[in-house]
Amino acid sequence: MSRELAARLTAELDQLVLIDPHTHINPHSPASKTLADIMGYHYYTELAHSAGLAKSQIEEPGLDPKAKVGRLVEWLDKLDNTVQVSWLVALCQKFFGFQDDRITPANWEALYDGAAAKMAEPDWEDQCLQSSKIEKVFLTNDFDDPLEGFNTERYIPCLRTDDLVFHLAKPEVRQRLAKASGIDFHNTQTLKDAIGHLFQHFVKKQAKACAISLPPWFTPQPVGLHEVRAPLQKILSNDPLSFEEQARVSEFVFWTIAEYCAEHKLPFDLMIGVNRRVYRDGVYQGQDLFDMRVSMIQYQELFNHFPQVMFPVSVLAQSSNMELVSYSWIFPNVIMHGHWWYSNIPCHITTDTRARLTAAPRTKQIGYYSDMYKLEFAWPKFQMYRKVLGQVLAEDFVLDRGWSEDRALELGRQVLRGNVETIFGVS
Amino acid sequence: MSRELAARLTAELDQLVLIDPHTHINPHSPASKTLADIMGYHYYTELAHSAGLAKSQIEEPGLDPKAKVGRLVEWLDKLDNTVQVSWLVALCQKFFGFQDDRITPANWEALYDGAAAKMAEPDWEDQCLQSSKIEKVFLTNDFDDPLEGFNTERYIPCLRTDDLVFHLAKPEVRQRLAKASGIDFHNTQTLKDAIGHLFQHFVKKQAKACAISLPPWFTPQPVGLHEVRAPLQKILSNDPLSFEEQARVSEFVFWTIAEYCAEHKLPFDLMIGVNRRVYRDGVYQGQDLFDMRVSMIQYQELFNHFPQVMFPVSVLAQSSNMELVSYSWIFPNVIMHGHWWYSNIPCHITTDTRARLTAAPRTKQIGYYSDMYKLEFAWPKFQMYRKVLGQVLAEDFVLDRGWSEDRALELGRQVLRGNVETIFGVS
Amino acid sequence: MSRELAARLTAELDQLVLIDPHTHINPHSPASKTLADIMGYHYYTELAHSAGLAKSQIEEPGLDPKAKVGRLVEWLDKLDNTVQVSWLVALCQKFFGFQDDRITPANWEALYDGAAAKMAEPDWEDQCLQSSKIEKVFLTNDFDDPLEGFNTERYIPCLRTDDLVFHLAKPEVRQRLAKASGIDFHNTQTLKDAIGHLFQHFVKKQAKACAISLPPWFTPQPVGLHEVRAPLQKILSNDPLSFEEQARVSEFVFWTIAEYCAEHKLPFDLMIGVNRRVYRDGVYQGQDLFDMRVSMIQYQELFNHFPQVMFPVSVLAQSSNMELVSYSWIFPNVIMHGHWWYSNIPCHITTDTRARLTAAPRTKQIGYYSDMYKLEFAWPKFQMYRKVLGQVLAEDFVLDRGWSEDRALELGRQVLRGNVETIFGVS
Repeated sequence: MSRELAARLTAELDQLVLIDPHTHINPHSPASKTLADIMGYHYYTELAHSAGLAKSQIEEPGLDPKAKVGRLVEWLDKLDNTVQVSWLVALCQKFFGFQDDRITPANWEALYDGAAAKMAEPDWEDQCLQSSKIEKVFLTNDFDDPLEGFNTERYIPCLRTDDLVFHLAKPEVRQRLAKASGIDFHNTQTLKDAIGHLFQHFVKKQAKACAISLPPWFTPQPVGLHEVRAPLQKILSNDPLSFEEQARVSEFVFWTIAEYCAEHKLPFDLMIGVNRRVYRDGVYQGQDLFDMRVSMIQYQELFNHFPQVMFPVSVLAQSSNMELVSYSWIFPNVIMHGHWWYSNIPCHITTDTRARLTAAPRTKQIGYYSDMYKLEFAWPKFQMYRKVLGQVLAEDFVLDRGWSEDRALELGRQVLRGNVETIFGVS
Repeated sequence: MSRELAARLTAELDQLVLIDPHTHINPHSPASKTLADIMGYHYYTELAHSAGLAKSQIEEPGLDPKAKVGRLVEWLDKLDNTVQVSWLVALCQKFFGFQDDRITPANWEALYDGAAAKMAEPDWEDQCLQSSKIEKVFLTNDFDDPLEGFNTERYIPCLRTDDLVFHLAKPEVRQRLAKASGIDFHNTQTLKDAIGHLFQHFVKKQAKACAISLPPWFTPQPVGLHEVRAPLQKILSNDPLSFEEQARVSEFVFWTIAEYCAEHKLPFDLMIGVNRRVYRDGVYQGQDLFDMRVSMIQYQELFNHFPQVMFPVSVLAQSSNMELVSYSWIFPNVIMHGHWWYSNIPCHITTDTRARLTAAPRTKQIGYYSDMYKLEFAWPKFQMYRKVLGQVLAEDFVLDRGWSEDRALELGRQVLRGNVETIFGVS
Repeated sequence: MSRELAARLTAELDQLVLIDPHTHINPHSPASKTLADIMGYHYYTELAHSAGLAKSQIEEPGLDPKAKVGRLVEWLDKLDNTVQVSWLVALCQKFFGFQDDRITPANWEALYDGAAAKMAEPDWEDQCLQSSKIEKVFLTNDFDDPLEGFNTERYIPCLRTDDLVFHLAKPEVRQRLAKASGIDFHNTQTLKDAIGHLFQHFVKKQAKACAISLPPWFTPQPVGLHEVRAPLQKILSNDPLSFEEQARVSEFVFWTIAEYCAEHKLPFDLMIGVNRRVYRDGVYQGQDLFDMRVSMIQYQELFNHFPQVMFPVSVLAQSSNMELVSYSWIFPNVIMHGHWWYSNIPCHITTDTRARLTAAPRTKQIGYYSDMYKLEFAWPKFQMYRKVLGQVLAEDFVLDRGWSEDRALELGRQVLRGNVETIFGVS
C-alpha cells in the first residue's frame, strides 16, 4: 500500500514546474550536442576509471566524441548498478526514445546517432527544459563573467567566489580581478573595493545568490586588518605564504564577501566539506573527496555575525546532515540546501529528507538542486529526488501522522519550488 | 501487514505504567496552568524564532500568557511539519478535547480557554499523570535544592552537577555551595567535603541518580592534587583562569563526583556533547548546539576506573549512537540511555533503537525519557517512542527473527520500564 | 510483497557456494569440538561479561569446557535480543538438531552432549563446510607461520602484519622475524630484506592477501631513511621510543609492506579504526573499541602512491562507510570489503550495502566475510548477510529500479563470490 501511495504522490509532484537553484550550466551552451557531452559528465568518466578504464583513454587529446562514448560504453556493465548510470538510461529513454534498459556495445551506436539528431533540432534547449518542467536555472558564474549574451530571466547568475577566497595568491586570479573590477588592488581597502565592484555588476545583472565551496578545515572568522596586511603584501610580491598566512587572507576575503551579501541582500550558498585533488591522477573533476571530521560549529561566528544574510548550506558528508538540521532548527539564517555530490544517492537523500522534514521549519528547506552541467540531467536527477520525497511524504506524513494526501503534497511543493522562490527572491 | 502488527504491539505497550527516568519537572509546579506554559517549551519558541519570529516578540517583559500564545500560533503553519508540533497537537487532542488537526489563528483562543479551564481543576496534576500512565518522575535538581515540600516517592530527586564541574569559578556558585553544604571550601579537601555533604543530603532525600551534561571537548581524567591546587586558589581569589586551568578544576570536581557516586552507589547520568550558547542571540534554551566530532574514547579512563558505577549515557549527535552501542556492548558499566534532544525525532530513534536492541544486552538499555519541563509532554513524547519501538519489535524481531508477539512485548516492556527499575533501584 | 520477494532472492543466493575472504580459522583445528569452542567466541564471553558475568568466572584457569558453557548459558536470557545470540541458536538448529528457540539452563546439557557427539564425527570439518556451502577459507597467519601441514587450496594463507608494523620494538617479535626470515636485521635495508623473505615464503605457499588492522590515529606516509634510522637503532638497543619515534618506524614498515604487495601483486587488506585494550579488564578479545573520528583522507598518500596495489578496506565505524564508498567510487585501487565487527549487525549492513550497491562500481565490492574463528560460524553469519542482501536487491533494484529478479541475482552473486575471485585471484 505504501508503495502505491508513494507513487501517487510522486506522480502529482511530477506536474510541478521547477526552478533549479544550483547548476553549472553554461548559458551559452546549455544543452548537449552529442552523447559525449552527456557521458562526459564526471560521474561516468570517474566511475569508468574507478572500474579500470585508463585516464589516458578517456582524456586522449583530440579524441573524437563518438569514439569516446564507445570507450566508455565498454565499461558500463561494471557500473550499471549505480544510480548515476540509471540517470543516463532514464534520460536516454525519455529524450531519445531509447527502448532497452542497458546501454551496451551492441546498441550504443544507434542511440548515439539518434540522440545527436534529436539534439541537433534548433529548439532542443527549449524542448528539453519544457519536457523536464524546468523554468529557470541558477548558474555558477566565475567572478569575472561578463554575464552578457544570455537571458538572465531564464539563466539566473550566481557569483561563485572560490577563486577569490582560496586562490588570490595566483597572479592570474588577481589579473582577472583587476580586469573585471577595474581596480588593481594594493591593500585591504582596495581589495574590498574590487570585490564590491563584482557584487555591483552581478546584482545589476540579476544575480540572486553568491556561492562558495569550502574545505573541511576552513573556519570563517573576522580577521584584524593588521593580521592580513603582511600576507597580502606577500601575495602582491608573489612571495610564498605559509598555510596560516593563506588562511588569514582566505578568512578576510570570505568575511568581506559575507559583508557584501548583507549589503546586497544576497543569500550566500555554502557548500561545506570538499578537499580538492585528493586523487591526484584522477580524471577531470574526479579527484575531490572529503573528510567527515568537519563540524558546523566552525561556522558559529559567521552565523552569529550575519543574522541578516541567508546561508543555504549544503554538506558533503551524510554524517553532517544532522548538524545541518539542528543548526537550521535554531539559527534563523541557516537553510538546508539540497543533497550534494557524494550525498546525492537515494539512500542518503531518504535519510536526510526524513530528518529535515521532521525536525525543522518547512520554510527553511530547499529540497533539491541538480548540480548539472548539461540540461538533460535535470529531469532524471529531480526524478530521483521526487521519488524519495514521495516515499517520505507517504510513509512519514500520510501513514504515520495521518495527514491527507493534499496536505502532504502541499509540503512537497513547498520544498520543491516554493522555498526557492521565497529564499532567493525569484518567482 | 507489518504496519498492523506494529500498531498492535504499540497498543499493548501503551498499557504499561511508566517511570520517567529524566525530566526537568519542577515538583512544586509540575503541570501547566495555561497553553503558554506548554507553548513556552523551548521547542516552540526556538522553532518559531528560527522561522522568523523575533526574539523580542517572544521574550517581551511582562507579556501576557495569552498574548504570547497568540503570537506563537501565527507561526505554527511554518512548523506544522515538525514532530515537535505534532506532540503539541496530540496533547491538546488528548487532554483538552481539541478536535482539529492544526492549531491556527482561527481556533486557538477556544483551545486556550478550554485548556486553562481543564488545567485549573484542582487534581489536574493527578489526572494528567494517570491519563499519561506515568507513576514516577525523575527530577533534575540544582545541587543546593533543599528537596523539601514534595513527595519524593513520586518525584525522585537527581543531583545535577553541571554548575559544580563547569562554573565553580563563579562566586555565586561557590556561595550556593557554601550555603548548601555548610562548608566554605578553601582547598581541595574541603571542596571534596562540601561536595560530599551534597551527596549525603541527596541520598537521604531518596535521590536515585547524579547527572551532568558535558561539552564535546571534555575528557574526564584523574588530576593530581598538585595540578589543581593553583587553579583552585585563583578561583578563590577571583582571578581569571586559562582554559587549561579551568579544565583541571572541572576534571577534579568531576572525578570527585564520580567517587561519591561509587560510595553512594548512585548511577551517574552522562549527557555527552552539548556546546552551550552557540547561537548567542537565540531564545531562552534555544542557543545550544553540538559538534559531532566527539568520541566516547574520551571516557575510557572513567569507565575503566569506576567499574562499580553505572553510567547511563545519552549522546547528542546521532552519529555517536554506534559508539554508545559498542561501548555498552563491552563495558559492563555503560548503559544506553534514551534519545536526547536533537536525536529525539522518530527517524533517529528508529535507527538508534534498531542498533541498540540488536547488538547489546537487553538489560543495559533504558528506552526513553521525556526530558520534559511540564507533565503534559510525557504522553506525546513517550507515545512517539512507543510507536518506533512497536515498529522495530514488529519488523526486526517478529518478522525478521520469528519471535512471538509476546516475546517481543516482553523485550519492549523491559526497555520501557523494567530496566529503569533495576538500573536506578526504583520500583 | 517486498518481504516475499526478498525471501525468494535470498533463497536463490543460498544456493551459491562461497569463498570466505577473511577469517581467523586455525587450519590445524578449523572446526569446534564442543559447545565451549563455539560459545567461547568473544561475542558471547564479552556480552555475558557486559551483562554482569565476572571475567574470573569465564577465564578461570583449568575450567572444564562443559562447566564454562553452563556458566555462560545462565546469562543468555539477558542477551537473547542480540543478533550474535541468534547466530548461536541458528547454528545449533542447523548443525545439531536443536529444536528450541532459546538455549536455557533447562535444555543446554542435552544440546552440549549432542553437539559434542556430532562434532566428534571424523569428517565433521568436511560436513560443516559442505553444509555451509563454503569451498575455500582465507586465513589470518602470523608472519612467522610455517604454513605447513594443511591444504592451502582450501585454507588460503594471508600474511597478517600488525606485529611487524606496531610491535617491532618487542624483542620477541624481532626474534620471531629473525627466525622466520633467517635475517637478524640491524638497519633499514636488512629490515626490508627480512620482510621480503616473509613475502617470498607466503607467496610460495599460495598466499593471496596481506592484511593489517590499524588504529584511528595512523596515517601511512613515506618516511625518509634518515628519519627512521635513529628510532630503529633505539629498538635494536631496547631503548624506549617516544610516540613519534614509534610512529616513524610503523610508517616505514607499513610502507615497506605496501611495496612488497606491489612487487608480488598481493591485495593489501586494510582494517581501519581499532583501538586496542580500551577496556583493560575486559575478557579476552573483548577489550577493543574505536574512535569514530577517523578519516580515509589519512590514506590519500598511500592510495595515490600505490595505484597498482588493490586495497580491500574494512571500516569499523558505520559512520565511515560513506567515506569508504566515496573513496572506492573515485580511486581504482580502493575496494569495499565486508562489514567489520561492530558494524556487522543487520541494521548497519543494510544501510552500508544500500549505499555501496547504489553508488560505486559493482566490480569493486566484496559483500561479506565471516571473520570467524571456528567453521561453524560461516553459515549463520553469511545467512544474516544474505538476508540483508536479498532485501536490498528486492527493494532497491527489483522494486525501485524495475530490474528483473535474474538481473538482481546476478549482482548478488557477483558481490557474494565473483568479486572475491577476481580481486584476490582465486577461483
